[in-house]
Amino acid sequence: MRLSCSDFVFFIIIFIISCHAWALKPHLLGRHRFKSLFHHRSVSYKTFYFDQQIDHFGFLENGTFKQRYLLNAQRWQKNGPILFYTGNEGDITWFCNNTGFMWDVAEELRAMLVFAEHRYYGESMPFGDKSYSNAKYLNYLTSEQALADFAVLIKALKESIPGAQTSPVIAIGGSYGGMLAAWLRMKYPSAVVGALAASAPIWQFIVPCGGFYQVVTRDFTNGGVNCSSNIRKSWAAIDGITATGEGLQWLSQEFGLCSSLKSQEDVYGFKAWLQETWVNLAMVDYPYEANFLQPLPRWPVEVVCTHLKFDTGVSDKQLLHGISQAVKVYYNYTGEALCLNTSQTATGNLGILGWFYQACTEMVMPMCTDGINDMFEPQPWDFQALSDECYAQFGVRPRKDWAEIVFGGRNISAHSNIIFSNGDLDPWMSGGVTKSISESLVAIMIDEGAHHLDLRYNNNYDPDSVIKTRALEVQYFRKWIKEAGRTL
Amino acid sequence: MRLSCSDFVFFIIIFIISCHAWALKPHLLGRHRFKSLFHHRSVSYKTFYFDQQIDHFGFLENGTFKQRYLLNAQRWQKNGPILFYTGNEGDITWFCNNTGFMWDVAEELRAMLVFAEHRYYGESMPFGDKSYSNAKYLNYLTSEQALADFAVLIKALKESIPGAQTSPVIAIGGSYGGMLAAWLRMKYPSAVVGALAASAPIWQFIVPCGGFYQVVTRDFTNGGVNCSSNIRKSWAAIDGITATGEGLQWLSQEFGLCSSLKSQEDVYGFKAWLQETWVNLAMVDYPYEANFLQPLPRWPVEVVCTHLKFDTGVSDKQLLHGISQAVKVYYNYTGEALCLNTSQTATGNLGILGWFYQACTEMVMPMCTDGINDMFEPQPWDFQALSDECYAQFGVRPRKDWAEIVFGGRNISAHSNIIFSNGDLDPWMSGGVTKSISESLVAIMIDEGAHHLDLRYNNNYDPDSVIKTRALEVQYFRKWIKEAGRTL
Repeated sequence: MRLSCSDFVFFIIIFIISCHAWALKPHLLGRHRFKSLFHHRSVSYKTFYFDQQIDHFGFLENGTFKQRYLLNAQRWQKNGPILFYTGNEGDITWFCNNTGFMWDVAEELRAMLVFAEHRYYGESMPFGDKSYSNAKYLNYLTSEQALADFAVLIKALKESIPGAQTSPVIAIGGSYGGMLAAWLRMKYPSAVVGALAASAPIWQFIVPCGGFYQVVTRDFTNGGVNCSSNIRKSWAAIDGITATGEGLQWLSQEFGLCSSLKSQEDVYGFKAWLQETWVNLAMVDYPYEANFLQPLPRWPVEVVCTHLKFDTGVSDKQLLHGISQAVKVYYNYTGEALCLNTSQTATGNLGILGWFYQACTEMVMPMCTDGINDMFEPQPWDFQALSDECYAQFGVRPRKDWAEIVFGGRNISAHSNIIFSNGDLDPWMSGGVTKSISESLVAIMIDEGAHHLDLRYNNNYDPDSVIKTRALEVQYFRKWIKEAGRTL
Repeated sequence: MRLSCSDFVFFIIIFIISCHAWALKPHLLGRHRFKSLFHHRSVSYKTFYFDQQIDHFGFLENGTFKQRYLLNAQRWQKNGPILFYTGNEGDITWFCNNTGFMWDVAEELRAMLVFAEHRYYGESMPFGDKSYSNAKYLNYLTSEQALADFAVLIKALKESIPGAQTSPVIAIGGSYGGMLAAWLRMKYPSAVVGALAASAPIWQFIVPCGGFYQVVTRDFTNGGVNCSSNIRKSWAAIDGITATGEGLQWLSQEFGLCSSLKSQEDVYGFKAWLQETWVNLAMVDYPYEANFLQPLPRWPVEVVCTHLKFDTGVSDKQLLHGISQAVKVYYNYTGEALCLNTSQTATGNLGILGWFYQACTEMVMPMCTDGINDMFEPQPWDFQALSDECYAQFGVRPRKDWAEIVFGGRNISAHSNIIFSNGDLDPWMSGGVTKSISESLVAIMIDEGAHHLDLRYNNNYDPDSVIKTRALEVQYFRKWIKEAGRTL
């Protein structure tokens, strides 16, 4: 079976969602019932633009662009540390407003905070509005270029800010940003004394393709009795029901879809949308009410699973009614949604296209399902289909071995001073470093932790695990800062 | 004073010479009196070509080229180590034929030998005959691309050669090749367990510009009484003598120049040629008869200095007669030269242009003289002049900070398993790592050692220092190999 175009888009989008979800601007989420969630200290920063080389690895293209970065030095004392967020595939203000951990520890560490935007996202466009217009302009969208941006910016900041020359810099990032934080320490250890790579699946390129969906499945298995097995059964039920026009109509009404299902292609898209919903729920299964892609109750997977307890003998329609109720926990917790839109699965910013391009070049993360070890329809990994799709869309083909070669694959023991934190609920832990490699390449597993829970603001409902994780992370920061002082 | 075009070329060429000198093909040097120098074991290898990505850091250019590499596995036993020469700016067969150290230790270590050619040199041309035809084709000539070539090739070799999958790879190189060996370990530690960086001036980008010529001067000061001071006096003597047409004629005859000096521009070129001669002599001041750019006696600087012992009171013509005799040690030790050619200062291979381009982009090594701490005419470092010259020739401008940022400058303590060996006679030691940084970043100074003496074949005249150095290097190799075995 070949991977279809829609599958491909699906595989891409989940990572975008995973990274963007937690970064939605609070003012977009201003529904009354969630107001109480935002206990945040005020986040204030100055916005700067740095003249950054478009091409660090060639000299023919000698142009520069304005790389945006945000800076807060209110709690910093001279020679004190700089916490440097290595921006991922989105608007850096989102990350800045939502990486509460950095704001929470700034005072304690007397740290300067810097949030550096990743090229080709937010306002940091190498060729302005044309940046995404063709393959030639997109050619400088790589993680290596982004890492070089960070290294160059760090040198410039240290040289230009009085008192920063000897400041130790610590890279921090989550998800793809966490991968960049780890890689910055690996590739440019002279720039940063250490890195916190939160929920960073740096091994997603090389692990077996099924792990990701197995974690999703485990979350639902643990979420409630029969929960994952009912989801597994639902795919055949959907196929059965939608074999007739009447069934298509029934399903559309049952789910309250904005646009009725009319063809088998629509059904295919509907199932992909459902699959993505389960993935998203697993990623954002936080212990308190939170608002990412959607406003959600605390422990949303458990809430979802209360609708999927059926034992054997349930009819397809009863089963799909349960699925419908479950999905509405995700899409309509507020009760305000007029209908469910299966075509809208992620925020509409440039990040999607950018990450799509990155997945079409370096960020080749094989994913597959088998329906046995996971609750999804079987779908093998098909690199050739991905490659052809990429060539059709961008005129480029992915290089499947490159990420492993350039970032070392599993053989990273020569590096030092990196914390890899992962939540055991987070599907991305399947590609993460979950066991310590050495005394200074430390893995921290967060019990009951979803996607980079540790990078979020303190919350009264935080489990002990994440409180301890954050304390340990700060302890490592202090160690690195102290060691840097010795070598200066 | 601005750096003139000819100065610039001069500054470039010396590094070429330093790297090419020791690599001349033995069959080119077949004069009878030097036959006894070649006690080498037979060097036999198979030549292979690897399909290498033209651009590792962008995906629009998806073409490949044939990277040449040479391989000898006669002494290798399965799972045994691979000694991997990181080719510098020249034909790889030269390096292969002349890195005797690797051939000498292959048996002892049961090692496979691989010599990988650097892109844009020898036969490894990304765009065939057009590779040097314009700036667009030259755009992929960078050390980062070359390092990626090496990492990709190593992975391919380990995967394709039966028994090599777990073979630990050690990078070895001299001069620019030594810089690449060190950087390969720094940037791709998953590819190589360690590196021997022989006479590798990785800090030449950031050290004070005068160091290089100060070492040259020291060699001549130690080479004989009044030697460097007479060379220092010679520049004014040349200016004085060549102020008249008769003087130009006299000087041309005295030196036996193939082409008489006719103008002040010719005199300028003549002085640059002399300066280069002193530099070359310092680099190849070996303890036995050897044949690099020219056949030379053992300890050639001492021999040269026997002609430059004048005390005060010597006339300009007497002084310049001495200089002429000294220079002829270098250019006419065999007595067979019909005349001295001041325009021919290096081998005529592509390497010169390639290194010129690299110096015009990343490899910005400031050099200067002051006439006080060195024996040369004062000449400050002028980055702008270099930049303008580069722009005129290649349409590119050098980025003076990039090498420091990408390769970490002095702050390399996070890395491991690199030996930096330097000879105390070698001018390039001025930019080398001459003090150990940690237990596994080890500096070895070779007393009485010229440019990467340790990489040469064993010789009966080797001083104890280089014998001990090679033994210590092999000891580190064994340690790295053993450690790699533990982590496999």
